[in-house]
Amino acid sequence: MGLKLSPLAPAAFPVMPVVDGVRLATRACGIKYPGRTDVLMMVFDEGTTIGGVLTRSLTCSAAIDCCKKHLRSGQARAVIVNSGNSNAFTGRVGEESVARTVEATAAELGCRPEEIFVASTGVIGEPLPDQRITSALGALKADLDGDAWEAAARAIMTTDTFAKGAVRSAKIDGKTVTINGIAKGSGMIAPDMATMLSFVATDAAIPAAVLQTLISRGADQSFNAITVDSDTSTSDTLLFCATGKVDNELYLNADAPELADFVSALNDLLQDLAHQIVRDGEGATKFVTVAVTGAESDLAARRIGLTIANSPLVKTAIAGEDANWGRVVAAVGKSGERADRDKLSIAMGGVTIARDGQRVEGFDETPVAAHMKGQEIDITVDVGVGQGRATVWTCDLTHGYIDINADYRS
Amino acid sequence: MGLKLSPLAPAAFPVMPVVDGVRLATRACGIKYPGRTDVLMMVFDEGTTIGGVLTRSLTCSAAIDCCKKHLRSGQARAVIVNSGNSNAFTGRVGEESVARTVEATAAELGCRPEEIFVASTGVIGEPLPDQRITSALGALKADLDGDAWEAAARAIMTTDTFAKGAVRSAKIDGKTVTINGIAKGSGMIAPDMATMLSFVATDAAIPAAVLQTLISRGADQSFNAITVDSDTSTSDTLLFCATGKVDNELYLNADAPELADFVSALNDLLQDLAHQIVRDGEGATKFVTVAVTGAESDLAARRIGLTIANSPLVKTAIAGEDANWGRVVAAVGKSGERADRDKLSIAMGGVTIARDGQRVEGFDETPVAAHMKGQEIDITVDVGVGQGRATVWTCDLTHGYIDINADYRS
Repeated sequence: MGLKLSPLAPAAFPVMPVVDGVRLATRACGIKYPGRTDVLMMVFDEGTTIGGVLTRSLTCSAAIDCCKKHLRSGQARAVIVNSGNSNAFTGRVGEESVARTVEATAAELGCRPEEIFVASTGVIGEPLPDQRITSALGALKADLDGDAWEAAARAIMTTDTFAKGAVRSAKIDGKTVTINGIAKGSGMIAPDMATMLSFVATDAAIPAAVLQTLISRGADQSFNAITVDSDTSTSDTLLFCATGKVDNELYLNADAPELADFVSALNDLLQDLAHQIVRDGEGATKFVTVAVTGAESDLAARRIGLTIANSPLVKTAIAGEDANWGRVVAAVGKSGERADRDKLSIAMGGVTIARDGQRVEGFDETPVAAHMKGQEIDITVDVGVGQGRATVWTCDLTHGYIDINADYRS
Repeated sequence: MGLKLSPLAPAAFPVMPVVDGVRLATRACGIKYPGRTDVLMMVFDEGTTIGGVLTRSLTCSAAIDCCKKHLRSGQARAVIVNSGNSNAFTGRVGEESVARTVEATAAELGCRPEEIFVASTGVIGEPLPDQRITSALGALKADLDGDAWEAAARAIMTTDTFAKGAVRSAKIDGKTVTINGIAKGSGMIAPDMATMLSFVATDAAIPAAVLQTLISRGADQSFNAITVDSDTSTSDTLLFCATGKVDNELYLNADAPELADFVSALNDLLQDLAHQIVRDGEGATKFVTVAVTGAESDLAARRIGLTIANSPLVKTAIAGEDANWGRVVAAVGKSGERADRDKLSIAMGGVTIARDGQRVEGFDETPVAAHMKGQEIDITVDVGVGQGRATVWTCDLTHGYIDINADYRS
């Protein structure tokens, strides 16, 4: 496709350390894209626990159905991911393709099929040529390496213009643990979840039930708080594995104070990855933070924020560097959540434009106009009815989005 | 702005007859646009009844608040409309501006303020210079003419590239009645309602309560079944007046069989106006009909249809003339309504692409590709769970939309 690097891309891919108990390998299997890697194998040592968050799409892919089932066991030995074909809406053929991939991988690794997870991203409705994956399993296994996180992040890309990775470390019982995460996603990005895949692994020892709680909560404040184009995917997958190689105490309660530092590092990492997806939003030239306060509840605040962040009129105004706060007002009004029109306040770039339902007297647009020319746009809205607050992130809507999506069959 | 005429525009504005009891006048009052008419006065003879549908936006304009209140009486003598300024989010100043306009108009026409309706469309958050309207009332009154419907349709335009009008006639008790309607709207168009104004008048005699029922039902299948960009406006207004100049029987029941022909003509006219708004959708190059069947209910079908019609990925694919049915599947999945993935069928241009949850064996894309090159795109989806059905209309999402909205402060 020859997509140009997003102007919002980070300077470089982070240096990602080895996570003890995790090995990775990638390969060019010719699923769709010529001349690039498109299959990733992640293998975990025995005893690895897993939690995950999957798309709530009612037309989810066969891979999602499989992950849902396998998450029940809470045990993981491998994840097989391909890009270029989502194996969604492929009916029985798609289910059979997943079953063959799972069985072949389990046989190759000598584990139970329930410990294998699969994820696919790319075009919908085309049968997945799974024999191109299964015939490569031996070679993938031979290539496994603990130090292949950047290659892994590259193999799962579709319309992404940069590979996405993040690292954090934290202390549990005074012992240092590492969390590595990679993600892909740039269009069809919306809460519940973005069209995204993300795989996060730690060497900490965390029971599966706790992992599940932590990843659900974390997704809520990260991947479920971003939007590029309001389109939810059939294949969204976020998996979180813990190899338990660090011999920290096992805490059975996600709210245990001993886990606080770990939870904070995890949430920070998830938000970092989510922001990277927004920064790679198709056609994005601005990274937009929408903070809503004064709503009836935190959930109401999030809904208002997402309504603003999804409004094509708000997003095109930002693309045009126009501080069109009237469109923000209109978006608040259509959110369906309670707001007091006559108490509404709106600021952009920290400058209050409207307060108590009308434009501030003698409002000088100069500093706001300057803010709109930057790459980082801040919009804050107080809707004047309660204490609920939320922050969501999005990008602008530009000609680049149309270019990419009018031409690419994804 | 120098917008180019929409390629989907009708060949000509319809020839609109006089509706007995309705007179119109327009004037260039310099509200915002130089060198064009921007105020419309519609005056009705005594005894005119009125019903209406107004935006459900929680940040609605002062004019909407006024119409809501005045609709209670069911009596109308005039509508004053301006384009260029929506008088929305203007706080107390905005309310006072509406009050002055209403009082001055009532004084000019010698009627009660409760019989005056106002509507404003255009930029949000700027105080409305209402003295430019009130100082023109005498001149407007002097210019009133029954034969000024096209001029009226022109005066209420904002980013519209063509004036929108429609005419129907029907029989009540064997007597011929006329229904004239005008509308404006092209962006910020979404159900509940579009950013649109529409004024419909008939010479039939219809009690206000019946008018209200008919217009609510009619809006549901027309203006509330279209979307351009999913953005709801603060100012949407649809008013329906009946002058009672034709001495048909008064029917107190909207379902009276004697009104069937009238209702059918009304609904047809509303759908015609709604389609014209879609055809003038900002940047539109394709008119898209999405028909959904097999849903749990008609409402569920409409929600699924609107989710498809609002999907930026579906809309950009159509702009790119790509029969990307996978994006339709994804949109069904994110609608939140029940659908059976394994029974889902999708057709484009009458050609079945997918049936029972997978692509039709040996599917030949040639006829569908040819259909996508046309200006009228048909998508039909059966979601396989019930008897609910609905049709919604939208347009494609093109560079033209970005051009218009990144530059225009509306």
